[in-house]
Amino acid sequence: MYTDKSRRKFLGNAALIGITSTMLKANSSGEAFAQNKPPQVALSAKSTEQAAQGKRAGFAIHGGAGTILKSNMTPELEREYRAKLTEALMKGYGVLSANGGSLDAIEAAIRIMEDSPLFNAGKGAVFTSDGTNELDASIMDGRTLKAGAVASLKHIKNPISLARLVMEKSPHVMLVSDGAESFAKQQGIELVAPEYFYTEKRFKELQRIKEREKQQSDAPKKTSSRATTTDAQTSAQVFFDEEKHGTVGAVALDLAGNLAAGTSTGGVPNKRFGRVGDSPIIGAGTYANNQTCAVSATGDGEYFIRSVVAHDISALMEYRGLSVKEAAQIVIDKVGKLGGTGGLIAIDRAGNITQPFNTAGMYRGYINARGEPIVEIYKN
Amino acid sequence: MYTDKSRRKFLGNAALIGITSTMLKANSSGEAFAQNKPPQVALSAKSTEQAAQGKRAGFAIHGGAGTILKSNMTPELEREYRAKLTEALMKGYGVLSANGGSLDAIEAAIRIMEDSPLFNAGKGAVFTSDGTNELDASIMDGRTLKAGAVASLKHIKNPISLARLVMEKSPHVMLVSDGAESFAKQQGIELVAPEYFYTEKRFKELQRIKEREKQQSDAPKKTSSRATTTDAQTSAQVFFDEEKHGTVGAVALDLAGNLAAGTSTGGVPNKRFGRVGDSPIIGAGTYANNQTCAVSATGDGEYFIRSVVAHDISALMEYRGLSVKEAAQIVIDKVGKLGGTGGLIAIDRAGNITQPFNTAGMYRGYINARGEPIVEIYKN
Repeated sequence: MYTDKSRRKFLGNAALIGITSTMLKANSSGEAFAQNKPPQVALSAKSTEQAAQGKRAGFAIHGGAGTILKSNMTPELEREYRAKLTEALMKGYGVLSANGGSLDAIEAAIRIMEDSPLFNAGKGAVFTSDGTNELDASIMDGRTLKAGAVASLKHIKNPISLARLVMEKSPHVMLVSDGAESFAKQQGIELVAPEYFYTEKRFKELQRIKEREKQQSDAPKKTSSRATTTDAQTSAQVFFDEEKHGTVGAVALDLAGNLAAGTSTGGVPNKRFGRVGDSPIIGAGTYANNQTCAVSATGDGEYFIRSVVAHDISALMEYRGLSVKEAAQIVIDKVGKLGGTGGLIAIDRAGNITQPFNTAGMYRGYINARGEPIVEIYKN
Repeated sequence: MYTDKSRRKFLGNAALIGITSTMLKANSSGEAFAQNKPPQVALSAKSTEQAAQGKRAGFAIHGGAGTILKSNMTPELEREYRAKLTEALMKGYGVLSANGGSLDAIEAAIRIMEDSPLFNAGKGAVFTSDGTNELDASIMDGRTLKAGAVASLKHIKNPISLARLVMEKSPHVMLVSDGAESFAKQQGIELVAPEYFYTEKRFKELQRIKEREKQQSDAPKKTSSRATTTDAQTSAQVFFDEEKHGTVGAVALDLAGNLAAGTSTGGVPNKRFGRVGDSPIIGAGTYANNQTCAVSATGDGEYFIRSVVAHDISALMEYRGLSVKEAAQIVIDKVGKLGGTGGLIAIDRAGNITQPFNTAGMYRGYINARGEPIVEIYKN
């Protein structure tokens, strides 16, 4: 898909722009609107020509929304997040700048986040109640409306790549559990031992959640209809909220005008019963349609499924003529009214990007009109 | 949910109306428009009062769409289908007439079809390539937008009831595979041995499909880019088309004005790799929203997922102001343009019902404005 040489170039760019990104700011509402300017990074002859014709690439990613507060973050950890988000952004945008397809850009960027322990996807996936890891992902091609989705994977290093293989190499859209892994073996995709997904941080998180559950079940039951919330409970809730999100995703517009979206997750920590959230559900966590937009969501999966979030944004654009920014905000507000928290990234076919969320923060980034990566974490 | 006495009454009604239903016809396009008349069957005092206030119940079911041709059907088998569809219709409508909730009506009717070997759901589920049965189902409450979905079940007699338990007794929307069955055990739902799902008809069907696959792979490869279709291939395709659909579903409007939808399936015969279709996907195979409509779909699951069929109908009604009939037809036409075949049933909050399909037939039924069950199989 890309050469070692190009890989080095993008890593070099990422390092360079990791500095500039801290100096550049998006507008105060967190939305970035690509303008009709060629991107800054070097373009191939063909893509330069396309850019000159008014065509441009657009790219945005997220690394999960939740109770992400500056007060809980060390400068070191924040630097790590910013660097990894920048790397993923530049990787995907590099693919697009070299006239690559939107699906290639999505896959390349998400693989970087999946391979990092920082995010709740791939390597950094949270633990289930049983101490295992179960991963979900999906991808959709806005040109063909083809889609691939996988759920309840236990041995797949890069679920986003398996989702793409399901889309491209099978007649199916969704494969789950052991069956999906049999397909993965048939396709020769990289499988890993369950231990690959062990990270101390996530394992300790599971222990803390279980300890808290135990304390709560041991505590004498309150008889009042409305239990008083203690400081400890609040703090525990904040911790849980912070940890439960962390899904990663990407949306892309390539120089040929094709949209694509992808999402990958480890789900919620301490999950049981083969729970599947919105990430592998086409129309909920992921949707792409060249007529409207590409969307990847992150948050309380149950509320995002019930709200059919990603498709609802597309429908508001197609049937009501709303902008991607207006449509995305309406849908996030709807999710909030139902009681769900989270966020999403969306891009339309003109390259306009929006990244709304109703949580304290969302790890996110996009490429601005000058071809520069803008990485943000907190509310502006 | 209902007493033995009421059960006998509905079965009696079903037997009675099984005769009249053959005399009553829907309009030529297959749509039924409920009018503002009280249903014919006996109503409780409360529901009679509600009916007098202009409130009425609405109910429709399907038993799968596909290449269902009168020429391939025996009069005996057709009678069996009509009788079972009538029984399911009257069961669900009986719940509604007795002022029961739309979710109760959905569950009761779908359980009857799941317990019948005639449909590809529950007892009559098709076999996977491995000779097992994997069942999926989902249910959605239009009042709360709560939903429950289960996939890849191997030991659950009535997947629709497990989907409902997921919705009502868990914080989750979707549970899959072994985890979903652990939840089922915890909830005390009826589990059955895999042998329960053995039906000779479905097992022979699997053998025929495998035999055909073998013949096709043994046949010398054609070198022309477009292989000539032989009569045998056509006939095999018709057979496969006929057998691959058979999902069941129901949509309901209760006297309190609440919509609900549910869908249950065994998927496609000879399926592999833990394939999941649209039936358990909220927004694709099932969707309900009191603001718009309730929908249950059946057909080529992959195309229905990619088209986010059920939610798209709701969106066209909400954002474009279309009628349920117009919206459903547009969406079925979109699926057809992508290359997918199938059908769906939908009901709006005024009780208008539509049942479009782009296949030769669809097992379907609804309760007309006089409270009578109308059962149909072929195109009108």
